[in-house]
Amino acid sequence: MITENNADDNNFESSDTGRSGAPLKHVQTITFEGPIKLDRGGSLPEVTVAYETYGRLNEARDNAVWICHALSGDSHVAAHDDDDDPGWWDIAVGPGKSIDTDKYFVICPNILGGCRGSTGPDSVDPQTGERYGQHFPTITMNDMVDVQLRLLDHLGIDKLLAVTGGSVGGQQALCWAARYPNRTRGVIPMATSSRLSSQGIAFNVVGRNAIRRDPDFHDGQYYDQPSGPQVGLALARMIGHITYLSRESMHQKFNATRNKPRNLEAEFEGQFSVGSYLGFKGAEFVERFDANSYITLSMAVDLFDLGGSIEELTELFKDNPCKWLVISFTSDWLFPPRESQDIVEALVRTDRAVSYCNIDTDCGHDSFLLAADLDMYGKMTASFLAELTGQGSGRAGGGPGAQQSNIFHPDHPHRLDYDVILDMIEPGASVLDLGCGNGDLLAELGGRGEHRTLGVEIHQQDIAACVDKGLDVVHADLNDGLGALGDKQFDCIVLSRALMEIQDVKGVVEEMLRVGRKCIISFPNFGYYKLRDMLYHEGKAPKAGVLHHKWYDTPNIRVLTIKDFEEFCDELGVTIHQSLALDTEKGVTVSHAPNSMADLAIYVISSGK
Amino acid sequence: MITENNADDNNFESSDTGRSGAPLKHVQTITFEGPIKLDRGGSLPEVTVAYETYGRLNEARDNAVWICHALSGDSHVAAHDDDDDPGWWDIAVGPGKSIDTDKYFVICPNILGGCRGSTGPDSVDPQTGERYGQHFPTITMNDMVDVQLRLLDHLGIDKLLAVTGGSVGGQQALCWAARYPNRTRGVIPMATSSRLSSQGIAFNVVGRNAIRRDPDFHDGQYYDQPSGPQVGLALARMIGHITYLSRESMHQKFNATRNKPRNLEAEFEGQFSVGSYLGFKGAEFVERFDANSYITLSMAVDLFDLGGSIEELTELFKDNPCKWLVISFTSDWLFPPRESQDIVEALVRTDRAVSYCNIDTDCGHDSFLLAADLDMYGKMTASFLAELTGQGSGRAGGGPGAQQSNIFHPDHPHRLDYDVILDMIEPGASVLDLGCGNGDLLAELGGRGEHRTLGVEIHQQDIAACVDKGLDVVHADLNDGLGALGDKQFDCIVLSRALMEIQDVKGVVEEMLRVGRKCIISFPNFGYYKLRDMLYHEGKAPKAGVLHHKWYDTPNIRVLTIKDFEEFCDELGVTIHQSLALDTEKGVTVSHAPNSMADLAIYVISSGK
Repeated sequence: MITENNADDNNFESSDTGRSGAPLKHVQTITFEGPIKLDRGGSLPEVTVAYETYGRLNEARDNAVWICHALSGDSHVAAHDDDDDPGWWDIAVGPGKSIDTDKYFVICPNILGGCRGSTGPDSVDPQTGERYGQHFPTITMNDMVDVQLRLLDHLGIDKLLAVTGGSVGGQQALCWAARYPNRTRGVIPMATSSRLSSQGIAFNVVGRNAIRRDPDFHDGQYYDQPSGPQVGLALARMIGHITYLSRESMHQKFNATRNKPRNLEAEFEGQFSVGSYLGFKGAEFVERFDANSYITLSMAVDLFDLGGSIEELTELFKDNPCKWLVISFTSDWLFPPRESQDIVEALVRTDRAVSYCNIDTDCGHDSFLLAADLDMYGKMTASFLAELTGQGSGRAGGGPGAQQSNIFHPDHPHRLDYDVILDMIEPGASVLDLGCGNGDLLAELGGRGEHRTLGVEIHQQDIAACVDKGLDVVHADLNDGLGALGDKQFDCIVLSRALMEIQDVKGVVEEMLRVGRKCIISFPNFGYYKLRDMLYHEGKAPKAGVLHHKWYDTPNIRVLTIKDFEEFCDELGVTIHQSLALDTEKGVTVSHAPNSMADLAIYVISSGK
Repeated sequence: MITENNADDNNFESSDTGRSGAPLKHVQTITFEGPIKLDRGGSLPEVTVAYETYGRLNEARDNAVWICHALSGDSHVAAHDDDDDPGWWDIAVGPGKSIDTDKYFVICPNILGGCRGSTGPDSVDPQTGERYGQHFPTITMNDMVDVQLRLLDHLGIDKLLAVTGGSVGGQQALCWAARYPNRTRGVIPMATSSRLSSQGIAFNVVGRNAIRRDPDFHDGQYYDQPSGPQVGLALARMIGHITYLSRESMHQKFNATRNKPRNLEAEFEGQFSVGSYLGFKGAEFVERFDANSYITLSMAVDLFDLGGSIEELTELFKDNPCKWLVISFTSDWLFPPRESQDIVEALVRTDRAVSYCNIDTDCGHDSFLLAADLDMYGKMTASFLAELTGQGSGRAGGGPGAQQSNIFHPDHPHRLDYDVILDMIEPGASVLDLGCGNGDLLAELGGRGEHRTLGVEIHQQDIAACVDKGLDVVHADLNDGLGALGDKQFDCIVLSRALMEIQDVKGVVEEMLRVGRKCIISFPNFGYYKLRDMLYHEGKAPKAGVLHHKWYDTPNIRVLTIKDFEEFCDELGVTIHQSLALDTEKGVTVSHAPNSMADLAIYVISSGK
C-alpha cells in the first residue's frame, strides 16, 4: 500500500505517464544462479534483476548513486534521451538535475518480488516451469537488498557514493545502511520509517485482504485463468492512493468539483469527483501491476522492522560509518515525520554524521515525487552528494572556499561575538550549536581545525544553507528538549543569541548542562545602560544595540540582565568558568561594570559546583 | 464509513458488547403511511421507525433530549435496567449520568435506511412484497430527520430540550438545527461536520466499491441468495475502523503485540496484531449489519452538504434561534476539528448562542463514545442541558447563585480592574472577552444587566468552567485572529491582562479594532516605578505588582509601558476614549504620573481618529 512511483499532478487524467506495462527500452538484466537463500527460510533457484543505468562510472569507480524505487515503481527512474518515456523521478534525475547524471553514475534496479523485469511472483519457477504465483516465498527487505548487492558486485563497484529512495525505496536505503554500511558513503532516506506504524500496516492488511478474498484470486494461481483479482487489486490501490495524498491536497484536488465526477471509464462508483479519480487510478493500476507482487511487496513492507524504539535504532547504527541526509515531509501521514525523527535521534545520539530536514508541505507522502518541494529536497540532495565527493560549495575546513562564506558577506558583517565564542572552544572539541542559523559559526569553526560539529535549527532554509556548507544539521525545535542526546555527549554546546527566544528557558538550559561538558551561552544584556536609561528616564520599553526590535514584534520573548543570568546559574547550581561582556556597538569587550556597559554577554558554564 | 456506535475498549475481543443482531427488548415502533416523498425524488410507501425511550416526559413536555446514533448504531443507546444489555452510549446516558434520565426524557430512534428496526433496504416493500435491496431509493440526511420529526409529532412533543449525536449522529443534529430550528432549544453536535472532506468521501467510496464489486452482491438482491457480500462489507468495515481510531491510539493498542496476532476466528489475514483485530471486526460486523444499509447510509453521509464555506454556513444559520454546544476532538482525522470550527465561526459571525470546545485527546474520532474524555464532553453536555432548563449551576444574571461565583472565592480576591472594566461597558452592550479565563468577568457583567456576551479562551478546563456558568465561550487561539467576526460586530471587546501573552500583538489589536466598536485593553505597565527602579538601580529584570513572575518562566512575552501603548495607538491611528491607571497593590486609581505610579493600565480605544 506504499507509494506509487508516479509523480501525480493535478491534471489527473493525464498522470501516470502512460507507461502502463510498456516495455522498458533501456533495461538491462542479470541473472544470478541459486539457490539463493532467503531471510525467512526457503530459497529461490535463481534471481533475475532488471536495472537501468544513467551517466558514466568514473575511473575511481566512486561516483555511483543507487536509487531504490517505491512499491509500484520500476527501474525506469528517468528518461535516457529525448525520445524516451519520462521516468518516475524525471524531475530529480538527469543531466544538470539534483542527481546529476553528468556527474554521477546512477543505477536503479527493479525490486525483487516486483513485476517489471526482476524475479517476482509472476516469474516462471525454473524448477516447475510454471509461474510462482502464491508459491513465491515470503521475502523481506533484507532479501531485496541482498540481491541488489549481487548486482553491485556484478557492476564492479566496491563502494557507492550514496543510496537513496523514498517510501519503500527509503526503507531499502535504510536496509542498505544497516546491512552493508561499508558499501556506501552516503544514505538519503526520504519519507520513510524504520518500521511502519500500526495504522500503516492496517491499510496494507485491508489491501491484501481485498486481493486475497477476490474470487478471481484463485489462491494466487490466476495467471492462466480468464481473469485475475483485478477488483481486489484496484481496491488496494485506491486505499493506497488515499494514503499517498494529504487531507489538504485532496481538498485542493477535489473539493471545487466535489459533485462533478470526471467522465472516466471505470467499473467503479463514479459519484463524486474523488470517486471517479480513485476508480480510474484503481482500474489503470491493474493493467500494469501484478496482484501477487502487490501482496509480496506490501508484506515485506509490513515485516520490515529495524527497531521500534530509539534505543534499538541506536544499537543498530551506533558504529555506522555512513554520512546521512534524512528527509521527511510535514503532511506525510503514512510515514509521518516522527518516524524519521526517531532514526535521526538514534544517529545523533551515537555521534553519527547526519543532517535532517522536515520539509513543510501540503503534498503528503507523495511529496518526494513532486515538483512542489524539489527546491528543498532536490537542492539538499545535490549539496549532500557534492559534499560526499569533496566538491561541496561551502566545504567547512577553510581554504579558498571559506573566503566566500556568508560570514564575510557585506550584508552580514563580521561578528565579534563569534570570534569570542570560537576562542572559547578548545581545539578538537565536539560542538553542538543550538539555533545554528545558516551555519556561519560552525563553518568558521571548521576553518580553525578538526571538530565534530552538529547544528540544530528550526528554519528549513537555514537547514538547506547548512547542508550546502557541508555541515551536519538537524531540524528541531529547542523547546522540545534534547532528549535524543546522551549525558555529556558534546564537549561544548553553544546557544548564541537564542536564549531570549526560548519559551522553556530553564528546561533548555538544564538539558544543555546535562548534554554538554561546557555550555557557551550568549544573550543580549537588558541591563545595558542605554536600555536602563530608556526605561528609567523615558518610561519606554527599551531598545538599543542588539535589542533593536519594537516591543510588539520582537522575537525576544525573554528579558534578562547579566545579573539575572548569574543568579539563575546560582539557582541551578552551575559553575561559571568564564564570562565575557561586549559592547557590540563599539566592537569592544567590556571589563568595567559589564551589567551596565555591555549589550551582549557570553558565559561558559557547566553543571555542578 | 462513519463511526460505529460501539464504545471500543482496549480489550478488543470483548468489545461490541455482544449485541450482534440480538433483538432489542425495549424497542418500540411506529409506522407512518405514505407515500413519503424523498429529498432527491421518489417516495417510500410507508416508513417504520424503531425507537427507545428513557426517563419520563415531564408535564410541560419540555425535558426531551433527542439522541441520533452514528452510521452503524441503533436505538439502544443505553440499558433500560440492570438486566438489559448495555447500550452504545451507556457511559453518557442513564440515571445520574451526563444525559441524566432522572431529569430528561431521552429518545433514540433507529435511522431511516438502517437495519435495526426502522425502514431500510432490508425491509419488505409493501408494493412488491419483496425486500427493497438496491431498489431502496437514495435517501439524504433531510429524509432521515423528516422521518424523525414525524416521530416527534407522534410523541406529542412540540419542542425538544436538545438534539445531540456524534459523527453521523452529529450530522443529523446539524440537519435538525438547519431544518427545524424551532423544534429544539439546544443543539449538541459532536465530532462532526457540515460536509465530509474529500478524504472522508474517498474512504467511503472504496468501502462502497468493495461491497458493490463483491460477486455475492447480486446487484443488491442478495437476501435470497446462499450468501451476500460479506467480504465486501467486512472490507468496508475494516477501512472504517482505521478511520475511527487515531494513529496514536492504534499504536497504543497494537504496537506492543505487533507481530502477535490474537487467536481470533476470521477468514481474513491474521498476520499482525492489527490485522487480526480488523479481520475480527470486519467478520463480526457482517453478522449484524446489512450491506445495502451500509451503502445507503454512507452515501447519505457523502451527499450531506450544509455548505462548504463559512459564508454558506453563515447564511444558513444566520437566524437560528437554538443554543449550541459544539464539540470536536483534536485527534479526530475523519471529522477534523477545523470542520467543527467552520460551523462555530458561522454561528459566531451571526451572533448565535454557541459554545465550542476542541477536546485534547489521542482517541480519534471514536472519542465521543469513550470514557477517556467523558469528564470533558459529558460534563459540558450536562452543564449545557442544565442551563437550557434554567437550572444551570452558574446562571449568569445575578441572584443568590451569583454569590457563589468564583469571583468572591477567597483564593480569587475581588479584582479592582474588573470593576473598572465593567464600569466602562455601557448598559446592554454586546461584549466579546478575549482570553476570558473561567468567565468571572462575563459572569459578573451578566449580574449587572442584559448583555450579549461571548468569551474566547484557549484552555479547555476554563471553557468547561464557562459552560458551567452558562456563558457562551469559544475555544480558540487569539494568535489565529478573529477572522470569523464581522466588522464592528461587538459593541465592546475586552482584552484583560492578555496583551503581554500574545505573539502577534499588532495583528490581534488590529483585528479587535475591526470587530469592536470599542476595545478595552488592560495590561501591566512596565513603566511602574518599582520595575524601573529594579532595572535601573539593581540591574535586574524587573518584577513587581502584577508582573511577579521570574524572567525565565513568565507567561508575559511582551514588555510595554503606558507610553509605549499610547505611541502604539498613535501609530495605528486609533482614538483613545478613556484611560485609567491603577496601583493594584494599594487598590487605588492613579491620576498623577501614571506611567511611573501605576502597575496596571486600562484603555478604551476605537479605530480611526
